[in-house]
This record gives sequence, structure tokens and C-alpha cells, in this order.
Amino acid sequence: MNRTLTALVALSLAMPAAAAPPPPPTLEQRADQALAADDNAFRFVEGLTTEVGPRQAGTEAEARGRAWAVQWLKDKGFANVVDEPFMMNTWVPGDVARARVTAPFAQDLVVLPLGNSAATPPAGIEGEVVFFRTVDDLRAAPEGSLAGKIAYISHQMRPAQDGSHYGFAGPARWVGPGLAASKGAVGVVIKSVGTDHHRNPHTGGTSFPAGVAAIPAGALSLPDAENLERMFARAAGRPIMLKLEMNPRQIGQTQSGNVVGEIRGRNPMLPPVLIACHIDSWWNAPGAFDDGAGCGIIAAAALNVVETGQPLRTIRVLMAGAEETGLWGSAAYSKAHIDEPIAAGLESDFGADRIWRFDSNFSETNPMLHKKIAAAVARFGVSVGSDAATGGADLNIVRDQKGALIDLQQDGTRYFDLHHTPDDTLDKIDIAQLRQNVAVWTQVVGILANESQSILTGGPIPSAPAIMQRQ
Amino acid sequence: MNRTLTALVALSLAMPAAAAPPPPPTLEQRADQALAADDNAFRFVEGLTTEVGPRQAGTEAEARGRAWAVQWLKDKGFANVVDEPFMMNTWVPGDVARARVTAPFAQDLVVLPLGNSAATPPAGIEGEVVFFRTVDDLRAAPEGSLAGKIAYISHQMRPAQDGSHYGFAGPARWVGPGLAASKGAVGVVIKSVGTDHHRNPHTGGTSFPAGVAAIPAGALSLPDAENLERMFARAAGRPIMLKLEMNPRQIGQTQSGNVVGEIRGRNPMLPPVLIACHIDSWWNAPGAFDDGAGCGIIAAAALNVVETGQPLRTIRVLMAGAEETGLWGSAAYSKAHIDEPIAAGLESDFGADRIWRFDSNFSETNPMLHKKIAAAVARFGVSVGSDAATGGADLNIVRDQKGALIDLQQDGTRYFDLHHTPDDTLDKIDIAQLRQNVAVWTQVVGILANESQSILTGGPIPSAPAIMQRQ
Repeated sequence: MNRTLTALVALSLAMPAAAAPPPPPTLEQRADQALAADDNAFRFVEGLTTEVGPRQAGTEAEARGRAWAVQWLKDKGFANVVDEPFMMNTWVPGDVARARVTAPFAQDLVVLPLGNSAATPPAGIEGEVVFFRTVDDLRAAPEGSLAGKIAYISHQMRPAQDGSHYGFAGPARWVGPGLAASKGAVGVVIKSVGTDHHRNPHTGGTSFPAGVAAIPAGALSLPDAENLERMFARAAGRPIMLKLEMNPRQIGQTQSGNVVGEIRGRNPMLPPVLIACHIDSWWNAPGAFDDGAGCGIIAAAALNVVETGQPLRTIRVLMAGAEETGLWGSAAYSKAHIDEPIAAGLESDFGADRIWRFDSNFSETNPMLHKKIAAAVARFGVSVGSDAATGGADLNIVRDQKGALIDLQQDGTRYFDLHHTPDDTLDKIDIAQLRQNVAVWTQVVGILANESQSILTGGPIPSAPAIMQRQ
Repeated sequence: MNRTLTALVALSLAMPAAAAPPPPPTLEQRADQALAADDNAFRFVEGLTTEVGPRQAGTEAEARGRAWAVQWLKDKGFANVVDEPFMMNTWVPGDVARARVTAPFAQDLVVLPLGNSAATPPAGIEGEVVFFRTVDDLRAAPEGSLAGKIAYISHQMRPAQDGSHYGFAGPARWVGPGLAASKGAVGVVIKSVGTDHHRNPHTGGTSFPAGVAAIPAGALSLPDAENLERMFARAAGRPIMLKLEMNPRQIGQTQSGNVVGEIRGRNPMLPPVLIACHIDSWWNAPGAFDDGAGCGIIAAAALNVVETGQPLRTIRVLMAGAEETGLWGSAAYSKAHIDEPIAAGLESDFGADRIWRFDSNFSETNPMLHKKIAAAVARFGVSVGSDAATGGADLNIVRDQKGALIDLQQDGTRYFDLHHTPDDTLDKIDIAQLRQNVAVWTQVVGILANESQSILTGGPIPSAPAIMQRQ
């Protein structure tokens, strides 16, 4: 609880009505103030990226990140702040990642390992590169045809406001290495799943099918991938030989955790509004866009709602651990709290650029609330969409409960310039756009947290025995 | 000599006048064609960056780069193509470059060594960081005050069309490490002398004063430097400890070379026009902007001039070796050829963006020619400047001869986003702007190569005994 609210509560208890303080701002006023001058979201990201930096899931760095977030939430007056531990399988990237074309055009390429990549032997591996224009081409390659070879997988990802090309290009990373391994490849490099032209590869998780041993798997930066492709065009059939050295490894089970904090509602018997982000990042960047900004946005919005008066419902902030390496935190949170109904869930995890569209999964079941929210955010440049919201990665609990979900879609045009690269740093955040996010979130969370009926149906609140018993 | 010229010469000898071929394009026509469709410059850079890649001075990679350029010039019909060897002191960067803040905000920073940096011991060095806002602040630090410490030097470089902030910010790299060493520092890191925000440090040469032993010296990327500065703002007086590991080394004298080729003039007794670039790059990038593009531009311009008919004077292309690490090629070329008068010198070594200004050092001594060139390039958006041209780095011979110099100033607004970083890759080249360079160069070199009077004075050609004796 922040100082203003504390003061208001104290005043309301202690002072005669004649001396009542000025009323708090309306939700609309507070959202407008956030648009002009919110500072909490930026200060959160700045602090986290400066004082902690990269926060790979399951490592001591992520633990420091969680501890930092716990302290920040406590300092800001959040209640019931905890770091709920869970165990996970942890992969670490090592400190060697080198790729070198040895013939016919010898030069180094910039590479980073993909999550779950195997290590090479210390002396590296060397093999002929086999060029696949798409993951479908790789899928069509004969079984065993890559024995002793290194597969290279390309794609044609383009920037898109809705980020939809991630689904188009992503399989090169998600399933490409597993396919290559299953066909006998000794290693695989992919064109980074990204849209920039800097020498900063886009890492990210991959996986290998059951029964297929992991192989060394790396991402080349876009300029390096394009250079490799030009080599194929110029090699006139000569084999292109690549040497790869990487030392990532699986280190078994380690502990991660979910950071949770609450703005307590006036009626704590009502299911809370769950607002989520993830606190972990890949090892190669301080994770300003992914997802320090998201955590700053949701926390700042909760604090703004408080400024308009104590909300009816509790607002629960979930800063999930270990999202990047396999949604471990999301799964753990759902497992631990599945019997505690959530009123609605929404997540910020797509950078810090402006929100341009609102979707929910209750436009048909609770059209009045859907329209109310749409009308309330229109002045921030947010249109209403017709997609059924599916919620962010850390909202497994809401999906598992078949609960209400909202997606506040951010402009993803430059998101995949930065996503999972070393370049995901504080300077990439546009403060004006970050504030627009906070303003929209303030408006939406404020409406949800003061909604007395079921958000999903507009009718009476379903029974919530677990919460009732806790009170 | 290319096919068109060969054909023209053959025809002029063999055919009666009545069957004369169509006349060659005028210089103006050919320059306009270059603006629309030149391909030679881009193909040069594409080939060099793809087939050779980084070309650190004095290494086998630079030798491959020179051999590649020799072959390209021969293939295009240049005469007298040679790689003139010289010896140089060679520093190599090693393969370890790590920086880590160990307290109070533990995280890795991205660093690359500066040219002439010493190595750390294999286990690295660790020391408290002392923050200097400017190199002048460092200069003012008491003698011995940095004993056991690591200096950090900041600056406030800004993009500028004329690149003039390089002179403002550059001393942080050029003399900062030497100053830090002279005051007892065990290591030094600087904010990269650059203007971008990517995790790609800007390397470049530094030097240590006589009697001052080299210390480990690195450049942090701009985002990392800003992060370090934020740490100082948040540390509340706690010491910021940095661990540095780097293994560059001096490897003594090795061989480099200057690649030279000629378009022979109709009168080889006249001093030639010397057009220059440098073929080497730093080890960390294929050097597309710095200076593959420059070599492509000058070579393409020479080929275009030939298309308008054999020029009066010889056009000599100098693709200098070992510019980056200390202008070794420029010095060697001047020493070897100082007694062979050069008519005029000009160099392309500032990226591939458009030329916006023409300067010469003969605006007062040969105003008619100065005005003629200015008028000829105006249609390409090139204004006439009032600075006295000083020539590019590889034109020592012209400066030593006190000869005629021209500067075709390129737009440097984004040059220091890329300069000496891993990001100096082919994709950064804007083909339309590259072609504008070729068009302007074609126009200027064509005028110079057909000038019968002294370019510097407008009067008779000074005696040129060395050249006379060679013929």
C-alpha cells in the first residue's frame, strides 16, 4: 500500500467528515496522469536491468532478480509479497560459442547456443553445411541424409505489428534442430528468428524429440546467416565447411520461483484479478523488453489503481520465474493454486511499445463489460479486436480454470529486432510508449478490480470455496 | 582494360572512318548511368565481405583480402596490378574478451580490446572502477591516483553529418588509455567512441606514451557503458568492482602490402591521378563500410571513366594495406614512390552514404578547375565547401609532395553507428547512396584524368623526372 492510500485510510478513520480530504482522482484521471508522467514502470526496468542484469531461469542470477522484485514490491506497499519456490530442469549456455567457416571462404560467424543445445567436444566439430531454405525443406530431407553434416536452416521472417511472423518463422528454431538431429546431423545452425541486422544472435529454446539425442544447436546473427547464404551462391558446388565450438550443458534440477504480491481488495472473498509478467530473461541480455518492461507496466498499473481508492477485488501481481526455458513458473503456479479461482487474467510480455488492440475471451458471454473496457481504452489509441483472447504464457492457471482472459496487444513491429538478443537493453525502451502501456493497463485493471459480477459471465460470482476457507 | 575500351582501340586501328562505331558516352552520361545502375561497387564489397570477411592488418586474412583485390582488378582489366609488400608491427586481438562487474551489481558487460591493448593475466585482473566523465577529467587526476584501479572513460559523442564529433570524442580512445596507464591504472575501459545502441563495441587503435607500459584496454558497447554509469549513480559510494580478461598480443613484424592497379592514360608521361581506399579492416567485422565500400567506389569510378574513352592521364588505384592499425600502408607507399609526382589525390574512406560536399586544396591556386568540378557534381546534390581539403589517411604521398588534394565528403550521420564494430556488414550498405558515390567519383576522376594542365596550379605540368625516366 503506498503512502497516499495509507494516508487516505488513516484520514477516513480519524477525521470528521467536515475535514474530508480532496477526493482521489477518478480512474480516468489517473490513467491520463500515467500517460503523461508515469515513472514507476521505467524505474522498475531501470533498477532491474542495472542492479541485476541478465536473469537466466534457475540460476543464482534469476534468484537475485526475484529477490530484487520482492524488495521493490514491498517498498511500494504491496501486501503478501512472496517468492514461491519450485524446481525445474536447468540448462546453462556455457562461455564458449564460436562458429567459423573453414572453407572455401574462411571467416568467423557470430553464433549463440539455443536453449537445450548440446555441447561440442572441446576441440569442436567440423562438418559440411547443408542448406535448407525452410524447415519444411529440412522435414522433406531423407532419413540419414545428414549423417556427419551440419544443417543450416533459413526462413524469411518479416516485421509485423502483431508479431504474427513469429509463428511463421519460429519453427526453424522450435523444431528444426530436433529434425536435423533425427536425420543424423552432428550440429545445426539456424538463421536467427528475428528481424534486425545486428551481429547479435537471437537465442531461445529448442527441443529434441523423445529418443533423439540433443546435438549442438546455435543461432547465427542475421548478417552472418545472410553471409553464409551468399557463400552458397558463390561456392559453385564446393562444400562449405563449418567448425562449431560450444559448451552449454544441462545441470539438472535447480530452484526457481514465482514472485507474487497483492493490492488487497475491499472484499478479499472475491476472486482476484491476476496480472502477470515474467521476471527471468535469457543469459545474454538484461531483458528490458523481455520482460522487465512487462513487470514494470503491471506493477505500475496496480499502484495507479490504488491511487483511485482501494479496489473492490484484490489485484494479484505474478512475476513468474522460468518462462523462457519452458513456462516452468506458469505450470508451477497453476499446480499450486488451481483451486483458488481467478476472476480474470492478463499479461504483459511483448516489449514496451504501444498497445493497439484489446481482445477478451468474454465478448460474447459478458458483452457489456467487453464494450465498457473497449470504450474506456479507445482514447489511448486502442481498437477493439474480434479475436478470442488466449492470455500470456504465464497464465496457465486461468486457462486451466477456463477463466476470463484479456489480451492487450502491443505493437510488435520492432519486438523481433530485440527478442532474445544481447540488444534487449534499457535504452530500447521508448518512455512515451511505455507510459501508454501503463495508462491502458491502469484503465483496464481498475475496471476489472471494481467489477462486482463475474467477469466471464456478467452474472453472480461462482462459488469460490478455497478462497472462502482462507479468509 | 575492359572489353569496351579494348574494342574501341582495336576498331580505331583497324576500321576505316566511315564505319566508326557509335561514340562512347560522355562523362556526364556515364556518371548519370552510374547513379541509376552501377553494379561494380556493390559487387566488389559483396565479394570481398563474403569471400574474405575480416582482414586485420598484417595477418593472413589481410593477405587473402589483398590477393582477392588483385584478382578482381586484373579481372576488370586494370593494368600493372601489384601487391607491394612492406613490413609492419602487428597486434592481434586474441580470442578472449570478457568484462564482469563483480560488485555491487554483478553482471557481464560486453567488451572488445583496443588495438595495442596489453593482455591480462589468464585469470584476469580485478579492480575498483574510477569514473571519468571526460578524458580531460582523467588528465586532471593526480599522478599515481589510479594505482591498482581500472579507469573508465566516458564522453558525449553525437551523430553529425560531417562526423566532426569523432574529433570531440575520439581522445577517450586515442590518448585515454595511455593517460590512465601513466597514472598507475592496471586496466582501462572506455565508452565506445560511437553513436549507436547495440551490444557491439567500437574498437580502434590506441597508443601508450614512450616509457609507459601498455595495460589492458577495452571498449564497452554503448548500452554497457551507460549501464555502468547507472551503477555509479545507484552505488551510493560503494566501490564498483570490475573483472577483465583479455588476451591480445603483439606478434612483432609481419608483412602487409599495398594493392595498386592502373588505368593507363594516353600520355603516361603525365603524373597520374591517385585514387585511394584501404583494403584492411579490424578483425571484428568484414569491413563493408570501412572500407570495402570505398575500394568499390573508386574502382567502379575508374572503370566508368574508361567507358568514356581512354583518359589523358593514368588513373592509379591504391588499395592501401594496414590503415587501421597505424597508416602503415600510407607511409610505405609514400616512402617507396615519393619521387614519382602525383597529379592529385583523393580517397574514399567514410562509408557508403551520399557525398554532400566537395572541397579541394586548389580553390585559390586553380580556381577555374575548382569551379568546373563544383559545377559538374552539383546535380548529384553535392555543394561546394570552403575548407582546404586535407585528403584521406592513405594519401601521405600527396601530402608529402605538397600536391593537389580533393575531399568528397560523405554523409557521416550513421557512420559512427558502425565504425569499427562487428556490425560493419554488407547489409548496412544503401545501394542508392553507394551509386551516388560512384556517380560523383566518376565525374570528378574523369575531369581530373583529362586535365592537361597542372591540377594544383592550372599552369604547365612541373617537371617529373622520375616518371620521365621510367617511360
